[in-house]
Amino acid sequence: MDRWLRTYQEVREQSEHICAPLAKEDYVVQPIVDVSPPKWHLGHTTWFYETFLLSKRKDYRIFDPQYNYVFNSYYESVGARVIRTDRGNLSRPTVDDVYAYRRYVDEHVAQWISAGGHGEELDEIMAWGINHEQQHQELLLTDIKYILGHNPLFPPYQPVYKLPATTVCNAAYQCIPEGLYQIGYEGDGFCFDNERDIHRIWLDSYEIATQPVTNGEFLAFIRDGGYTDFRHWHAEGWEWVCKEQVRAPLYWYEIDGEWMYYTLAGMRKLDIDEPVCHISFYEASAYAAWKGCRLPTEAEWEVAAPQIEWGRRWEWTNSAYLPYPRFRKAEGALGEYNGKFMVNQMVLRGASDVTPTGHSRVTYRNFFPPSARWQYTGIRLVRNA
Amino acid sequence: MDRWLRTYQEVREQSEHICAPLAKEDYVVQPIVDVSPPKWHLGHTTWFYETFLLSKRKDYRIFDPQYNYVFNSYYESVGARVIRTDRGNLSRPTVDDVYAYRRYVDEHVAQWISAGGHGEELDEIMAWGINHEQQHQELLLTDIKYILGHNPLFPPYQPVYKLPATTVCNAAYQCIPEGLYQIGYEGDGFCFDNERDIHRIWLDSYEIATQPVTNGEFLAFIRDGGYTDFRHWHAEGWEWVCKEQVRAPLYWYEIDGEWMYYTLAGMRKLDIDEPVCHISFYEASAYAAWKGCRLPTEAEWEVAAPQIEWGRRWEWTNSAYLPYPRFRKAEGALGEYNGKFMVNQMVLRGASDVTPTGHSRVTYRNFFPPSARWQYTGIRLVRNA
Amino acid sequence: MDRWLRTYQEVREQSEHICAPLAKEDYVVQPIVDVSPPKWHLGHTTWFYETFLLSKRKDYRIFDPQYNYVFNSYYESVGARVIRTDRGNLSRPTVDDVYAYRRYVDEHVAQWISAGGHGEELDEIMAWGINHEQQHQELLLTDIKYILGHNPLFPPYQPVYKLPATTVCNAAYQCIPEGLYQIGYEGDGFCFDNERDIHRIWLDSYEIATQPVTNGEFLAFIRDGGYTDFRHWHAEGWEWVCKEQVRAPLYWYEIDGEWMYYTLAGMRKLDIDEPVCHISFYEASAYAAWKGCRLPTEAEWEVAAPQIEWGRRWEWTNSAYLPYPRFRKAEGALGEYNGKFMVNQMVLRGASDVTPTGHSRVTYRNFFPPSARWQYTGIRLVRNA
Amino acid sequence: MDRWLRTYQEVREQSEHICAPLAKEDYVVQPIVDVSPPKWHLGHTTWFYETFLLSKRKDYRIFDPQYNYVFNSYYESVGARVIRTDRGNLSRPTVDDVYAYRRYVDEHVAQWISAGGHGEELDEIMAWGINHEQQHQELLLTDIKYILGHNPLFPPYQPVYKLPATTVCNAAYQCIPEGLYQIGYEGDGFCFDNERDIHRIWLDSYEIATQPVTNGEFLAFIRDGGYTDFRHWHAEGWEWVCKEQVRAPLYWYEIDGEWMYYTLAGMRKLDIDEPVCHISFYEASAYAAWKGCRLPTEAEWEVAAPQIEWGRRWEWTNSAYLPYPRFRKAEGALGEYNGKFMVNQMVLRGASDVTPTGHSRVTYRNFFPPSARWQYTGIRLVRNA
Repeated sequence: MDRWLRTYQEVREQSEHICAPLAKEDYVVQPIVDVSPPKWHLGHTTWFYETFLLSKRKDYRIFDPQYNYVFNSYYESVGARVIRTDRGNLSRPTVDDVYAYRRYVDEHVAQWISAGGHGEELDEIMAWGINHEQQHQELLLTDIKYILGHNPLFPPYQPVYKLPATTVCNAAYQCIPEGLYQIGYEGDGFCFDNERDIHRIWLDSYEIATQPVTNGEFLAFIRDGGYTDFRHWHAEGWEWVCKEQVRAPLYWYEIDGEWMYYTLAGMRKLDIDEPVCHISFYEASAYAAWKGCRLPTEAEWEVAAPQIEWGRRWEWTNSAYLPYPRFRKAEGALGEYNGKFMVNQMVLRGASDVTPTGHSRVTYRNFFPPSARWQYTGIRLVRNA
Repeated sequence: MDRWLRTYQEVREQSEHICAPLAKEDYVVQPIVDVSPPKWHLGHTTWFYETFLLSKRKDYRIFDPQYNYVFNSYYESVGARVIRTDRGNLSRPTVDDVYAYRRYVDEHVAQWISAGGHGEELDEIMAWGINHEQQHQELLLTDIKYILGHNPLFPPYQPVYKLPATTVCNAAYQCIPEGLYQIGYEGDGFCFDNERDIHRIWLDSYEIATQPVTNGEFLAFIRDGGYTDFRHWHAEGWEWVCKEQVRAPLYWYEIDGEWMYYTLAGMRKLDIDEPVCHISFYEASAYAAWKGCRLPTEAEWEVAAPQIEWGRRWEWTNSAYLPYPRFRKAEGALGEYNGKFMVNQMVLRGASDVTPTGHSRVTYRNFFPPSARWQYTGIRLVRNA
Repeated sequence: MDRWLRTYQEVREQSEHICAPLAKEDYVVQPIVDVSPPKWHLGHTTWFYETFLLSKRKDYRIFDPQYNYVFNSYYESVGARVIRTDRGNLSRPTVDDVYAYRRYVDEHVAQWISAGGHGEELDEIMAWGINHEQQHQELLLTDIKYILGHNPLFPPYQPVYKLPATTVCNAAYQCIPEGLYQIGYEGDGFCFDNERDIHRIWLDSYEIATQPVTNGEFLAFIRDGGYTDFRHWHAEGWEWVCKEQVRAPLYWYEIDGEWMYYTLAGMRKLDIDEPVCHISFYEASAYAAWKGCRLPTEAEWEVAAPQIEWGRRWEWTNSAYLPYPRFRKAEGALGEYNGKFMVNQMVLRGASDVTPTGHSRVTYRNFFPPSARWQYTGIRLVRNA
Repeated sequence: MDRWLRTYQEVREQSEHICAPLAKEDYVVQPIVDVSPPKWHLGHTTWFYETFLLSKRKDYRIFDPQYNYVFNSYYESVGARVIRTDRGNLSRPTVDDVYAYRRYVDEHVAQWISAGGHGEELDEIMAWGINHEQQHQELLLTDIKYILGHNPLFPPYQPVYKLPATTVCNAAYQCIPEGLYQIGYEGDGFCFDNERDIHRIWLDSYEIATQPVTNGEFLAFIRDGGYTDFRHWHAEGWEWVCKEQVRAPLYWYEIDGEWMYYTLAGMRKLDIDEPVCHISFYEASAYAAWKGCRLPTEAEWEVAAPQIEWGRRWEWTNSAYLPYPRFRKAEGALGEYNGKFMVNQMVLRGASDVTPTGHSRVTYRNFFPPSARWQYTGIRLVRNA
């Protein structure tokens, strides 16, 4: 069997495997604008292959022309899109309709690949499509967590969901000497356009923690009044804390004097040895200031990556999301994937507990607005050498 | 069988009958704050019997104590309520859970009635509960219409849904002489507290249309620029038109030069002989001003009711929703049913195509804010004699 | 001298007399949308005579054509208007410019009257203009109070401002028997269109307090937790209290355990014998409910007026602001004066400490949205007989 | 005379010189939140010396303790501050009060300096104070322009205001070779904390325009539909254009087919040879994309500065406002000057037509949110070599 076909089918199955524990009703709702209904993720990733791959073929018949309107995300080139906040109002297409859509598209993709009708262009689109769906697998889990974790009944996603077992030892600091380094992607494998080009960057020496900050360490910040002392915060972060009345990471609840948090396995007692999770850039930055440290830049992170433990949290950096030197957008709709978001967002590096296997690289650049907390975000400290 | 039991069971079945054509996903969404998810209506009407009837019995075990939090509406006396705008985010309890809840409560109500454990108090609560559920049956149909009629796929509720056949003849005007009249409810049957007491009211003479305004007549208003001439409108209505960019009744679409509207049977060509529907008080009032007429007061409407055709549209009056002389709120939570809404709302009189059989009276007072359009609202004209 | 001229000049001088204690800077600001800058009141009342009187004359030259844009209020017929919220951004025309504008218009009005160039039409316009300016004199004082009373320096308007001396004795209740009464204006004097026509109205018997509610009585409501018990409030009023965190009438401050309030003479200790002031309809209504009483309808107020003490507070009624039977709007721009506001407002009756002498009538209908508090509003109770 | 004293007095006089053409009313208003009333600028810069210099002295008596509340800006350490949006509501202290405040503080500063009571600490505070006031001089002119330029009468600030005469020739591109460069401030003079430390940075080769983009060039972008083609814009920029309906730079008006713009000398015909002004980062970035170029990074700008003409516009860079390596906040309230704003803002480099003489450096870092347009902002292009 074609290697594309096997990979394609594995990734497609994985998305549906993630949704298997859901009730139909869980597929439909959108409690905040950051979250998309699981049904929409399943439809949107399918629409991606249909639009960028199948619809180029003369003999392909679109499953339903209306679906472009429903499952497009932000691709202004491709047609009018549903306002993002409206996704949670769409009871139709039903969940069964969406699975039928997946069947239909999967069959046609398989036929095409098997018929050998592809070439270099297919390779590129397939790689994008598969990586795109893996991004949405991570989003599926974070969005499902939000949907169930904000329901007053606090239903578990899977009562036996296996949370990663490793705990965090006391962090040491690794010293990185000053010098001219290279960062960015170089090689033949897949990467997103925002990881290119590889380029030189000068770094002063610095010391970076080998482990992320733990729940226990963050609790000390809370107990020391970290959320009530403006001096640790960006002005904008302080406004956010006051307006949203933030007092702890997302999903944390103090119940009868004990800290609990919602996990995909249900409500649990807070594990103080776990890396802290679900905090905004503002909180990460305030924590670092309180500690007399700072967050790494993305270059510092990437250079140090081989010498630190990473992979359980997306780690906030103090780098704004901006183009690398000689960045070029792709032509057409794929060019809208990354470049147009390069303002007012911060870069995160690493990967998380819910990142699909094989979907992380040391050059990978994730990005969110500084207030985002629903992802598996964490903190790594740096201090000047 | 007890007469209460039969009525109870008929009404309960009717609610479920209304929902039979729905997909599970249709039960869950809430596109605007006025609309509640059908699942919520089914749960809330059940919660009403559980809370005000069954929970008074010592041996009754609450189905799920969390449901009070989910299915309470606005009864501040009964416990913390879910913020109304959040109803559309609740994927759980599932639709199956809600039907199980209905089964459980229905069984216990039946047992109690059959056991003869009731008396005068039961009679009152049962009457409220049944009338309450009938109100929600009307809301179910208007909310389902909104949910499906704002989906980009415009799915019909029932492709064979039978729309009422009668059309409207040219309206005549009926003259009502001046005099001291009586309005309000008097009798032994059920009525809401806002319909009491019967009281005297002086009316000057007036002429009232025997038929409601039709789509064709309203089209003439649109074509004459009615939506673009501020002189017909209240200042507040004019702001509403400008801000919301209103150009036609809700559900009307001009497609290739032809007026269409969404009905429960799907998208249809506009029938110009049907009474106009889904208009706000502002639009009703502007139309009347454009015609050189006015809307009736609720007293004028009630006095004239025996001499006009009514029952297909809730008809906007020019009366604000205020208490009748000697109005007294019921004690406890039921006292929150009506009285506390008596500010900034206008009274509607009549009944509509989707009002349950037997749930209309000449003294019935419906009320909505002046901008509401998702109900089956219409216009009746009055002119000074 | 012509009687119009004398009245005209007296009223014009009075507006300027009210502004005499102001600093130039006080003329300019607009802290909330309800309040207009004093400069704007002076210009707008002048614009009224220029537009409706002088501009009809062929030989009159508009002072500055741009002023129509700046000083129009809500008269959609007369030209594009400045968005109301923008009034506080206009540093020009300056205060001196506005006084020059007043001089210019006053001179031309005087010339015209002296030249005998007027007739019946003039009479009507002059009467409107003068009454209009008197309304704005009341607004000037309430708006000045708001501007200075919300400045952190709490400057007095006039340190020696003479507050009315009369205090309120224990209220008695006056009984009014049931019957067919007449309300509305009848006569040859000036009245606004909303006071017409005189018409019959049936009233059940009721008892009305001969005195308004005092600060001391209202304090008892506060101390009994009136602002924290939802049962006294309209649903909408309760939302208002919670959202705005209202805990006392406007201008009340609890300082070191003692209640103070801002007056036009500066900050003072609360006088418990004064009629309570600066409360919203929601508060008036909640107070009445707490007392087991209710607010009068406007008909009940008007019928009882000869038998009660009134004139220091605009008194909230439980009547919505709606047209009287056979109400007809004036033609043209003056028709926009009242009719178009007849939705979502409540009627106030009486007059207040800052109402100009001669500008009150028993038939006068004032109206505000139920949340308004910056006016000299108060409470009178009614109970069923 | 002490050199501090002379500089101090010159700078103080210059602020008042800028305000000399204003009417008192112009000192008071705040049309948008970015703009502060000129009165406030005069008071705030005075408060700065009083708080950080004079109040350290035992024998100094605060002019008015309430002024700290009114004239503090964002210094959370120093006391409760007036919400920034409220500045436009404060009619008191009056303009005369503020000038009296300036007299009082100036006298005490002069006494202290003359008495030789200062040392190294004074030097630092004086330098900050003077630079701080110069920053506010630039803001004074931009804010005055906004206040008068958004008045419907469009009054000139000074009819004879001399606009800079130099026009822009066709831009050439200067090539800068790749290499390891240094940026940041090094030396003994004054600089802000955000300009430190000097540090190394690697740059790839690039070509930078020697002149800024002109009005004429920007007009070509408008005429080519630049504001209506989403492909040139950041996603966030495109939302801004659509929501705010932006169609041209701020102050541009198309009147009878001719482009006009408001200048400090009044409304003028657009000069196509002037550098374009009053555009947001979004517009600068979209223009560059349309041209197939890009904006410089701040390092590219600083390295190239000696070889380009700059100084008439603050030039948007594509660098986010972030700390330099080894950045350290000052202790106490001065530490709030810069560091806490280092998120969600873009860096501007250069200086503008209204920057005070002597208040520009090649290392100076200005910063604003990407939507800001009321400053004298402009565009310089870069292309890859």
